Amino acid sequence: MANDHIEEENERSSVSRRRDFQDKPPAPFIGAEELKKWSFYRALIAEFFGAVVFLYVTIMTMVQYHLLADPLKRGDSSPAIGILGIAWTFGVAMFLVVYSTTNISGGHVNPAVTFGLLLARKVPLVRAVMYVVVQCLGALSGVAMAKLVMGAYEYNEYGGGANLVADGYSNGVGLAAEIIGTFVLVYVVFSSIDPKRNAVDSHVPVLAPVPVGLAVFVVHLATIPITGTGINPARSLAATVVWRHAAAWHVQWIFWIGPFVGAAIAALFHQVILRGASVKALGSFRSQSHL
Amino acid sequence: MANDHIEEENERSSVSRRRDFQDKPPAPFIGAEELKKWSFYRALIAEFFGAVVFLYVTIMTMVQYHLLADPLKRGDSSPAIGILGIAWTFGVAMFLVVYSTTNISGGHVNPAVTFGLLLARKVPLVRAVMYVVVQCLGALSGVAMAKLVMGAYEYNEYGGGANLVADGYSNGVGLAAEIIGTFVLVYVVFSSIDPKRNAVDSHVPVLAPVPVGLAVFVVHLATIPITGTGINPARSLAATVVWRHAAAWHVQWIFWIGPFVGAAIAALFHQVILRGASVKALGSFRSQSHL
Amino acid sequence: MANDHIEEENERSSVSRRRDFQDKPPAPFIGAEELKKWSFYRALIAEFFGAVVFLYVTIMTMVQYHLLADPLKRGDSSPAIGILGIAWTFGVAMFLVVYSTTNISGGHVNPAVTFGLLLARKVPLVRAVMYVVVQCLGALSGVAMAKLVMGAYEYNEYGGGANLVADGYSNGVGLAAEIIGTFVLVYVVFSSIDPKRNAVDSHVPVLAPVPVGLAVFVVHLATIPITGTGINPARSLAATVVWRHAAAWHVQWIFWIGPFVGAAIAALFHQVILRGASVKALGSFRSQSHL
Amino acid sequence: MANDHIEEENERSSVSRRRDFQDKPPAPFIGAEELKKWSFYRALIAEFFGAVVFLYVTIMTMVQYHLLADPLKRGDSSPAIGILGIAWTFGVAMFLVVYSTTNISGGHVNPAVTFGLLLARKVPLVRAVMYVVVQCLGALSGVAMAKLVMGAYEYNEYGGGANLVADGYSNGVGLAAEIIGTFVLVYVVFSSIDPKRNAVDSHVPVLAPVPVGLAVFVVHLATIPITGTGINPARSLAATVVWRHAAAWHVQWIFWIGPFVGAAIAALFHQVILRGASVKALGSFRSQSHL
Repeated sequence: MANDHIEEENERSSVSRRRDFQDKPPAPFIGAEELKKWSFYRALIAEFFGAVVFLYVTIMTMVQYHLLADPLKRGDSSPAIGILGIAWTFGVAMFLVVYSTTNISGGHVNPAVTFGLLLARKVPLVRAVMYVVVQCLGALSGVAMAKLVMGAYEYNEYGGGANLVADGYSNGVGLAAEIIGTFVLVYVVFSSIDPKRNAVDSHVPVLAPVPVGLAVFVVHLATIPITGTGINPARSLAATVVWRHAAAWHVQWIFWIGPFVGAAIAALFHQVILRGASVKALGSFRSQSHL
Repeated sequence: MANDHIEEENERSSVSRRRDFQDKPPAPFIGAEELKKWSFYRALIAEFFGAVVFLYVTIMTMVQYHLLADPLKRGDSSPAIGILGIAWTFGVAMFLVVYSTTNISGGHVNPAVTFGLLLARKVPLVRAVMYVVVQCLGALSGVAMAKLVMGAYEYNEYGGGANLVADGYSNGVGLAAEIIGTFVLVYVVFSSIDPKRNAVDSHVPVLAPVPVGLAVFVVHLATIPITGTGINPARSLAATVVWRHAAAWHVQWIFWIGPFVGAAIAALFHQVILRGASVKALGSFRSQSHL
Repeated sequence: MANDHIEEENERSSVSRRRDFQDKPPAPFIGAEELKKWSFYRALIAEFFGAVVFLYVTIMTMVQYHLLADPLKRGDSSPAIGILGIAWTFGVAMFLVVYSTTNISGGHVNPAVTFGLLLARKVPLVRAVMYVVVQCLGALSGVAMAKLVMGAYEYNEYGGGANLVADGYSNGVGLAAEIIGTFVLVYVVFSSIDPKRNAVDSHVPVLAPVPVGLAVFVVHLATIPITGTGINPARSLAATVVWRHAAAWHVQWIFWIGPFVGAAIAALFHQVILRGASVKALGSFRSQSHL
Repeated sequence: MANDHIEEENERSSVSRRRDFQDKPPAPFIGAEELKKWSFYRALIAEFFGAVVFLYVTIMTMVQYHLLADPLKRGDSSPAIGILGIAWTFGVAMFLVVYSTTNISGGHVNPAVTFGLLLARKVPLVRAVMYVVVQCLGALSGVAMAKLVMGAYEYNEYGGGANLVADGYSNGVGLAAEIIGTFVLVYVVFSSIDPKRNAVDSHVPVLAPVPVGLAVFVVHLATIPITGTGINPARSLAATVVWRHAAAWHVQWIFWIGPFVGAAIAALFHQVILRGASVKALGSFRSQSHL
């Protein structure tokens, strides 16, 4: 709030003497050499299990909400958690899996986040592709577990947690909602990993997952009535595969194109406009050429 | 809780030897020289996009709540999020945009906050005026995006998120509710940027946006039934401009006068009474005159 | 979670060499000399305004919930925030006022908390008495403001936020609920100011108000159906005075005896059992006699 | 989020020079010598009172929710807090008792957590057994207090907060829900006490209880409709003993086997896969043999 003068200071010291504020060098573009490291596979395991936990918890809650809200099934008068409860589930579950995996894999658990970080040169290509693969496999396993536990009939009857475009909205509107929603999420992700912020907050990385989870929360509140809210292609794909209705397959493209476009805009916005990456990249190129 | 003796210590060392506890010098009054800095424009961009995100998320959620609560439209029995859900949306969205912009622009995203900080000499005049302009433009863009995504008919039919004084309340009551609500918000903002607190909490600035967001939350709970809760002139203006009903224009003054008066009282209260600014200003004048 | 061995370490070093872990010396018992300090009056102002804000926000929300839940008055189908919303209001508002006043007055804003800290020798008698007086005056002002803003008719018609013992419960049950509820609150307050914890958490005092606010939240959820939940005599007195119904005056004693007994048990429990205060007090007496 | 390279660094320095990142030596297996220490009994007292507070608050809230949701009893239209409110109660109450006891006993307050930490050699056997005993006794006392305060008739009539397998689900499904739910909880507990994380977050241990409480929250949202959510054998046993219905006794085994199996899987998963405990244990054995 009162940091108005921080950037002026930085501007003056364009050749920063403080190691804290320096950007990390960009990740290697391909990064195939990581394939030989155990830590790489441990990160894949963490992303996989993060997606399992995220999808199991959220799909269990979401489908049972429809079950509880069904007037023919309800035992008592007001147990249903409503859209507010659904939004809390997604937001808090995302906080938990980011919190649990952040020291191991960087805590993506979302192909759109991985894509945004790839574009910003925070993650090499091989790692990004493998993350997306295990995120989708983990999400599939989590949804399948939820279906097994709650019963296939109930799961199928109440929509399976799949993302659709609600009646009365066009596909274009659904796509716009996904683009904007994912922009908000990935913009917050970039804010939470900003080197400037990390220098100041170096003792509290535990807190970075909090705004990420809360971004998921508000975007769900805003767009559940339109698309059910994807903003995570692994989540959308998994529910569609397990639910197996043509209706969900027909709009599946919206839940990949939308989040990837939103993530790309957020990456571009954060790197080019807010951080002036192009200028700095040039500067770091020069200073490295002296080494 | 157990800091009862902190101020005594400070009192004894009225010429403080600890740099941590010193106040920043007041910002320059006009501050026109900032117009030449890139960081100034980056701050304007951050405030603009913060307002876009804040208004898009909150208006989407708020208008759809009225849609979902309409008995003629509802598909199932209890999806509506109610006033509690609306209050969470506004509070959490404000947390997110303050969190994301605090290192770049100081994280105002609210003309009333900017006005309070101007009065307390935390922000120079030129910066304050430009902030208010881009906050309003950003808010307009955010509401317009929400209207485009949800459809103009639904947006207009359910009130467009505009602030009105509810039936049964006078304009004077609405004004009082806005003054008190904004006082609570700006009082918490001042608490979160207190130099004493910052000295102690220097490692956790990430947390300052939390109380700000929660202040927005409780004020919405308390005054949504009266005015819909403005406490942010950019938010009130934008919804009024996009909704285009005379009813909202007739009371628009309440949502500018109220927040500005509330912010002024909070600034005065914090600076004069709690921090003894007049005495300290005198003291710092003297000590500076020796330099 | 993994601090199982911390106390063993401390036990071994019963004459602690680490200043961090030492207890503060007990506050003076009377403390009349504070009456000459400006910081003492600033603390009173902070406690007063904290109570104003706490009561205004919570009573506005609580009474309007009854108004919105009234089937004869409601415009649409589900805006009411329910007991969950009431509990959030009280918890979050208490967090905010503790957060805002903790560096100035220690952040009590509750006579029961002040009483518990007095018994534990954290606050001298004169300060404690004056705190309770200004907390009650501030609470009165906050409730009166809420009544003015929402209108006297609505305020009186919907119970005025006063604490009563609900139909079907005896006064003894109400008293027990208040004792246990205040025990939970003050027990958490003592945990948050434990010197051991403060040594470890010295950089994050900003967080101490979080558990205090959340304790208020869960106690409200548990006991709103029985007493409306007092656990704060200033809050109970103020609503009773402003509402002016004999029914609330007849049970007012419950909302003073209950919280004070609960706070006393918590103080005793924390000081004697968990911290072994008697032994330590003896030790500190001896070591001081050598000075 | 941006810690992708942390583990590579550690890998390179397999003989770590940084004390921060070293694992604690495993706890002694039996640990009978602790029986002579006062700190051991203080820890038992803390676990006992943590369980009292946790069960009193949650059972009060949960049973009254059924009472409020009963159409024959309700006074006004929508006070019931629903499953969302129940989930918040359990999550926030667990946060509070972990927060309050973490510096004294390690903050388990759940036999499944104690069992998981025993398997991971974080707690010796004698301490683990005694913790489980006092957790159960404390839980019994808390439920009994809740029954006394709300009245035996209401308590018995509305299910007493006991865990059952809901109609339409098999015992096998209930067991699976408990295993998975406890896995999620104990997995988060292990993440929060990871030595790597603790090295980085050494200044913010206050925050470790936050994810633990939120894990309890989301698991309750997901599985309340199936089993009422146990994931804590002390909680399940206590409500069953106090409620005294055969129906709850018949399925009590599910709420011991399920949580213990889930905790064991989480301990195995975290120690063997994510932390490579077997290899490191071997390594530390070797390096210690040189001493």
